[in-house]
Amino acid sequence: MRVTVLNGPNLNLLGTREPDLYGHASLGEIEVLVRTEATGLGVEVRWLQSNHEGALIDAIQALPGSADGLILNAGAYTYTSLALRDALLAVRVPFVEVHLSNLFAREPQRQQSVLADLALGVITGFGPTGYLLALRALHAKLANV
Amino acid sequence: MRVTVLNGPNLNLLGTREPDLYGHASLGEIEVLVRTEATGLGVEVRWLQSNHEGALIDAIQALPGSADGLILNAGAYTYTSLALRDALLAVRVPFVEVHLSNLFAREPQRQQSVLADLALGVITGFGPTGYLLALRALHAKLANV
Amino acid sequence: MRVTVLNGPNLNLLGTREPDLYGHASLGEIEVLVRTEATGLGVEVRWLQSNHEGALIDAIQALPGSADGLILNAGAYTYTSLALRDALLAVRVPFVEVHLSNLFAREPQRQQSVLADLALGVITGFGPTGYLLALRALHAKLANV
Amino acid sequence: MRVTVLNGPNLNLLGTREPDLYGHASLGEIEVLVRTEATGLGVEVRWLQSNHEGALIDAIQALPGSADGLILNAGAYTYTSLALRDALLAVRVPFVEVHLSNLFAREPQRQQSVLADLALGVITGFGPTGYLLALRALHAKLANV
Amino acid sequence: MRVTVLNGPNLNLLGTREPDLYGHASLGEIEVLVRTEATGLGVEVRWLQSNHEGALIDAIQALPGSADGLILNAGAYTYTSLALRDALLAVRVPFVEVHLSNLFAREPQRQQSVLADLALGVITGFGPTGYLLALRALHAKLANV
Amino acid sequence: MRVTVLNGPNLNLLGTREPDLYGHASLGEIEVLVRTEATGLGVEVRWLQSNHEGALIDAIQALPGSADGLILNAGAYTYTSLALRDALLAVRVPFVEVHLSNLFAREPQRQQSVLADLALGVITGFGPTGYLLALRALHAKLANV
Amino acid sequence: MRVTVLNGPNLNLLGTREPDLYGHASLGEIEVLVRTEATGLGVEVRWLQSNHEGALIDAIQALPGSADGLILNAGAYTYTSLALRDALLAVRVPFVEVHLSNLFAREPQRQQSVLADLALGVITGFGPTGYLLALRALHAKLANV
Amino acid sequence: MRVTVLNGPNLNLLGTREPDLYGHASLGEIEVLVRTEATGLGVEVRWLQSNHEGALIDAIQALPGSADGLILNAGAYTYTSLALRDALLAVRVPFVEVHLSNLFAREPQRQQSVLADLALGVITGFGPTGYLLALRALHAKLANV
Amino acid sequence: MRVTVLNGPNLNLLGTREPDLYGHASLGEIEVLVRTEATGLGVEVRWLQSNHEGALIDAIQALPGSADGLILNAGAYTYTSLALRDALLAVRVPFVEVHLSNLFAREPQRQQSVLADLALGVITGFGPTGYLLALRALHAKLANV
Amino acid sequence: MRVTVLNGPNLNLLGTREPDLYGHASLGEIEVLVRTEATGLGVEVRWLQSNHEGALIDAIQALPGSADGLILNAGAYTYTSLALRDALLAVRVPFVEVHLSNLFAREPQRQQSVLADLALGVITGFGPTGYLLALRALHAKLANV
Amino acid sequence: MRVTVLNGPNLNLLGTREPDLYGHASLGEIEVLVRTEATGLGVEVRWLQSNHEGALIDAIQALPGSADGLILNAGAYTYTSLALRDALLAVRVPFVEVHLSNLFAREPQRQQSVLADLALGVITGFGPTGYLLALRALHAKLANV
Amino acid sequence: MRVTVLNGPNLNLLGTREPDLYGHASLGEIEVLVRTEATGLGVEVRWLQSNHEGALIDAIQALPGSADGLILNAGAYTYTSLALRDALLAVRVPFVEVHLSNLFAREPQRQQSVLADLALGVITGFGPTGYLLALRALHAKLANV
Repeated sequence: MRVTVLNGPNLNLLGTREPDLYGHASLGEIEVLVRTEATGLGVEVRWLQSNHEGALIDAIQALPGSADGLILNAGAYTYTSLALRDALLAVRVPFVEVHLSNLFAREPQRQQSVLADLALGVITGFGPTGYLLALRALHAKLANV
Repeated sequence: MRVTVLNGPNLNLLGTREPDLYGHASLGEIEVLVRTEATGLGVEVRWLQSNHEGALIDAIQALPGSADGLILNAGAYTYTSLALRDALLAVRVPFVEVHLSNLFAREPQRQQSVLADLALGVITGFGPTGYLLALRALHAKLANV
Repeated sequence: MRVTVLNGPNLNLLGTREPDLYGHASLGEIEVLVRTEATGLGVEVRWLQSNHEGALIDAIQALPGSADGLILNAGAYTYTSLALRDALLAVRVPFVEVHLSNLFAREPQRQQSVLADLALGVITGFGPTGYLLALRALHAKLANV
Repeated sequence: MRVTVLNGPNLNLLGTREPDLYGHASLGEIEVLVRTEATGLGVEVRWLQSNHEGALIDAIQALPGSADGLILNAGAYTYTSLALRDALLAVRVPFVEVHLSNLFAREPQRQQSVLADLALGVITGFGPTGYLLALRALHAKLANV
Repeated sequence: MRVTVLNGPNLNLLGTREPDLYGHASLGEIEVLVRTEATGLGVEVRWLQSNHEGALIDAIQALPGSADGLILNAGAYTYTSLALRDALLAVRVPFVEVHLSNLFAREPQRQQSVLADLALGVITGFGPTGYLLALRALHAKLANV
Repeated sequence: MRVTVLNGPNLNLLGTREPDLYGHASLGEIEVLVRTEATGLGVEVRWLQSNHEGALIDAIQALPGSADGLILNAGAYTYTSLALRDALLAVRVPFVEVHLSNLFAREPQRQQSVLADLALGVITGFGPTGYLLALRALHAKLANV
Repeated sequence: MRVTVLNGPNLNLLGTREPDLYGHASLGEIEVLVRTEATGLGVEVRWLQSNHEGALIDAIQALPGSADGLILNAGAYTYTSLALRDALLAVRVPFVEVHLSNLFAREPQRQQSVLADLALGVITGFGPTGYLLALRALHAKLANV
Repeated sequence: MRVTVLNGPNLNLLGTREPDLYGHASLGEIEVLVRTEATGLGVEVRWLQSNHEGALIDAIQALPGSADGLILNAGAYTYTSLALRDALLAVRVPFVEVHLSNLFAREPQRQQSVLADLALGVITGFGPTGYLLALRALHAKLANV
Repeated sequence: MRVTVLNGPNLNLLGTREPDLYGHASLGEIEVLVRTEATGLGVEVRWLQSNHEGALIDAIQALPGSADGLILNAGAYTYTSLALRDALLAVRVPFVEVHLSNLFAREPQRQQSVLADLALGVITGFGPTGYLLALRALHAKLANV
Repeated sequence: MRVTVLNGPNLNLLGTREPDLYGHASLGEIEVLVRTEATGLGVEVRWLQSNHEGALIDAIQALPGSADGLILNAGAYTYTSLALRDALLAVRVPFVEVHLSNLFAREPQRQQSVLADLALGVITGFGPTGYLLALRALHAKLANV
Repeated sequence: MRVTVLNGPNLNLLGTREPDLYGHASLGEIEVLVRTEATGLGVEVRWLQSNHEGALIDAIQALPGSADGLILNAGAYTYTSLALRDALLAVRVPFVEVHLSNLFAREPQRQQSVLADLALGVITGFGPTGYLLALRALHAKLANV
Repeated sequence: MRVTVLNGPNLNLLGTREPDLYGHASLGEIEVLVRTEATGLGVEVRWLQSNHEGALIDAIQALPGSADGLILNAGAYTYTSLALRDALLAVRVPFVEVHLSNLFAREPQRQQSVLADLALGVITGFGPTGYLLALRALHAKLANV
């Protein structure tokens, strides 16, 4: 089972960026946690991050044939990018949306994801643990099919 | 570690109620899954369901001293009950909100939870698996403290 | 043919409650009218009233197996109760929504029923006569099936 | 007792027009049903249809002296015609509003009737049966006065 | 003169519930203050609290014949319960609405009471003192009649 | 100087239609008043009324070459008819909008004229006198040019 | 018959202020026109202007006993001053609202008068002529009483 | 292949009506252009114009059996006429919506067509050329079926 | 203890101004009631009224050093004056907002106070009694500090 | 005559992407159709696609001097990109906006183009044929100038 | 070059008023800074402050002939005063709007200036320095003309 | 002191792009002005421009350690880019937002900056001078710390 984890803008700054909100773990540390968990589940992980909306679209377009599922933290593009939405609609790879902070406790413009209704489900608010839960959720779904 | 799982209105009908949306597992079957997972984690589970908003408020008020955390699926009260919100504000027991279907893919009036901003986090869209993820998420949080 | 008539909050006060708006007939007098009409149509009637949202949900959950159709006057819960809506969605018993006063001539917050789109149809504004029309409408629908 | 039944735009196409929504009965067939029921109640029926808003206004203006009550299905003018509303306000003939489909289950712009608050009441969702219920409701009201 | 004081959901937790917002006095302590003040004014007090919307409706329905006036703190039902509103409309007992915190300084969804326009008046923001002022206000009104 | 006075739907019922709102003068009586005033001002009057939106459009299209100005009371079409607006934009004949009742004291949907911004000015609330004032205003404008 | 003409903020600049919109006549020149017309009608005119909202309120409060009617051009306070509205409600002197430009052709925030529904009627768009029409309208109304 | 071209209110004034917006070609001149193009494509054209909403509805109802497709420029009824929409829904004749000016550059109330979602497609902004493009688009669609 | 009572626009007309809404007591009579009550509580009262927003701002700016608390009935400025709000924010003198009528039963634009969230609390609907309750409430607060 | 055709995000996936909505032709196949048509019209075509908003802006900035006109299908950036809008405003090259699906039949957030009011016109709903119509429309416009 | 600096309500309290928001400098101290800077630029400064909207209007009306430009901090009237807007429109003196705090970081009702679109530009958020920047900006503009 | 000046999309076209709105100076000419002013203030300037949102995010992420402050003109991304906002929140470098035109006089969608509340302050409307004022403002702030 192959899973791509795609991280959007500013997630490369985790650990130093608003730590009260996003925690002290760096994105690299989260990647290690996810890879460890993935090994236990027999999942092969590809890990990506970009600040460029177009690069994220390119990455999603490349999923068919290279990944069975997607874990997506699109950062601030979550709230505005209809182009990402179209890419997800086009490739139809099953995906889980994950957010480090609890979207429901954020300011109003961060409570309307333009992607989330396309996801299998959403996990929000659990910090790095959310990535592990997303991996388990995705694994359970893909194993069932 | 003691965890209460509180289920709101119409969840007693799971399995027969809109199975395309909510799945074929009954609430009893989900309870068994959760208790099994909990045993593995060393968590003691109390399991409740009620159609009565007042009974759910009473149950939340009874949490301090009897539970370390709460898993809450408030059903349709999620979207309207400021009284449940007040109860959660009053007892301040850490809780995870869980929904079987993906709220973000539901009709607009089911996308505004009046409870979720008080939660540690929200897990939505994974069916019965969501309860297991919620248990893991809550366990991880409580173990850290 | 078995029909349940379910009356929501404050309908037990009919006759004394805002008679300019709701008329002078008591709920008991309406019940007599309905039972008389039902006898003529060969319909067996069960008659219920409650001020408790939870009790109304319980009653709707109990319909499958005990009623072929429902006449529902949910009172003020008509405008706010997504939990009642979920119960109606769960049991899928055909029902007619009835209101004594003309909803379209009421204040704005009473013009948006959260239940009515699930009904076979709605009859509003004809006082106690509305219950008789609802019975006829429901009978016609059920007889056709 | 004399009753006019006034049908608005596109109702002349009933039976062939969106039959999943409006049923297979033609307007002529509904007229026969209504005339039969009316004979039983001792009601004299005048039956009209027009696609022209102005013609419908003319017809409403002609009601005083020629009809004791009105059954009105104004079709799509229901949602937009303040001029029809003014005509109804001007003649003050008691009327029942009827719709074949359930307005509450239609798209939003068909849920705001600009006429219905002036009606004795509204019957919506019962197909041709709705006209018969409207006749009964109107008859009951007029007989009381 | 007989006055009922009716307290809604979560008010039984006063003193421990969000004390920064609602103060440190328990509901029992406020009851003692009110009873003392009432004795001085020659007012007989009945004191009730419930978390159940239906129970509050039942209590309001029971007012005629048993109370001359009502002091109502409906808690979170203040903002949503049209059913409570209907009960108040039905019994038409004069009442004063009271809130411990200042509604005008709360979040938006707590600034629209669906009950307050039916009240003689509203007193909000003075903590337990508000109950005493409400008693005085109600006493003054009832003594005038 | 030639002036057309164009009256929209239901104005033919003046005198009997909601007299508390629109007064007791019939449209014929107002016509006499206007013709008398016009004679004094040396104005030739053409007087029209129709309930048909299309007929009103036809009349406006016929203005160039046959009238120097227009007095327009479009009745309920005032609030909804973009087609009348287009006709007025097309012919560009100067016009005065007049209403018998005070639009600003009417219900909200009657406070947004889709025509009035094209007018020289608007006179509203003075009953039949409003037509006379409109004639004077139009006369003053046309005499100046 | 005594009539006060009350002019609000910035009207003292007429003639030089945005002449494309408000015309080239000064307020003094308009006053002369009005006094001339008033003499012909046997009306005694008091003429006032102030930029101060409080001063305008004082002037309105002084009307009872000193004027039979009011012509009011409240300038920009028309759109915002609930205090002027309260003063007009308090003294209940009949008044006509007048505007030089056509409010309906202005920007949106100038289309919602908070005063106009209290007026006998409104005349808008005719420049200085509007004052003369207002005087005639007011005279006609007062003479009738 | 038979195509009806239906033109709504005020289009008979083309050439003289707001030429900056709608161009200098008359409707007759456009008809000639269309008929020439149609001859080249082997299409038989019926050409209609009316200012009356009811007449346009009648014309649409007459399409089945007499036309294979429709080119519709409903003028100002585009934005308001749910009755035209119902007629189009009833006959289900494939149609292309065309506008001379660019709707997207017009005022807001002209940017919400109540018909366009039913069309095969929309062509807007190209003046008379738009009719020719519409004919080609319709011809291509009909030839494919 | 020194308390200033500040009354806004049109309150000088109390007794004659809309007595059904505001009662028959004059402002002077209310002042006497307040001074009597104040004497009993050992409170020194300064009593002011103005129709001028600027004068009210000046008065609030003068409070520090001359008053321990404020009772404020800002009349219609309550709903619009951000400048009064800024003055209250600047001086930070504790105050009670009082209204004679019940704001919650007034028209919508009078239900949004721009001052009330800054107050200790609000008392609304009790007529002159409200001033006495406000004095007691303020006295209780100030005595506690 | 030189024309650039600019295609936005996800259009490179045409043919496999949501074929029910966008059809089975690939972007390459559409390019061939357009180049063939262009040859017949004597138009030189440059064909571009990018998923990157910045790259599309760069391409538009490069138009002056290299193209006489533009055919633009900006994909999902159509609805959100004010930066693309600014680029179009800056270069002022005449352009036609084209969409494969009918925007008016899409979800609401796809009905508000932030570019379309700047276009000569818009063609929407005709699939690949739309590109050919756009080329003809643009050619007709440019040939006229 | 003559510049008037006009300060609105509550700015006389600077230094003691909400110092976290507005800083510790008094208005007098800011005046000294501005006068010093003005001397360096060869600008003659007139400095005014008032809490009275009418007085500010009077001051603006007095600008032509006495000032070449205006620096305006209208305080809370910035957000509500259409009368000030009209005065600025009438005199057409070039002006710069300045605010001590950053409007964009304030509560929503302070983000909509009704004056700012008339200004040359706006400087907001820099405390007393903002006045100096405004003077430089105004000086640069006036020197260019 | 090191300051980065970051310019967003389409600013590379200044001078030729909508000169009525943005002026005739090129971005290079503005850079020269800023560098000259900076030299006088002892500030080292880094100057950047990009049309790519991702490149702007990258540039902001690179600020810590390489700049003491930022002058930001994000062009059209100002109104939509939550990703830029997140980058600014992450690096917390003090910055001044500058716009050449007066945002308050632009169309509505350009009046809501999603960045400006994070800035020290905003300077808008002064053309190239605005950059110089921004430099002075930033220098003053940084020198104070």
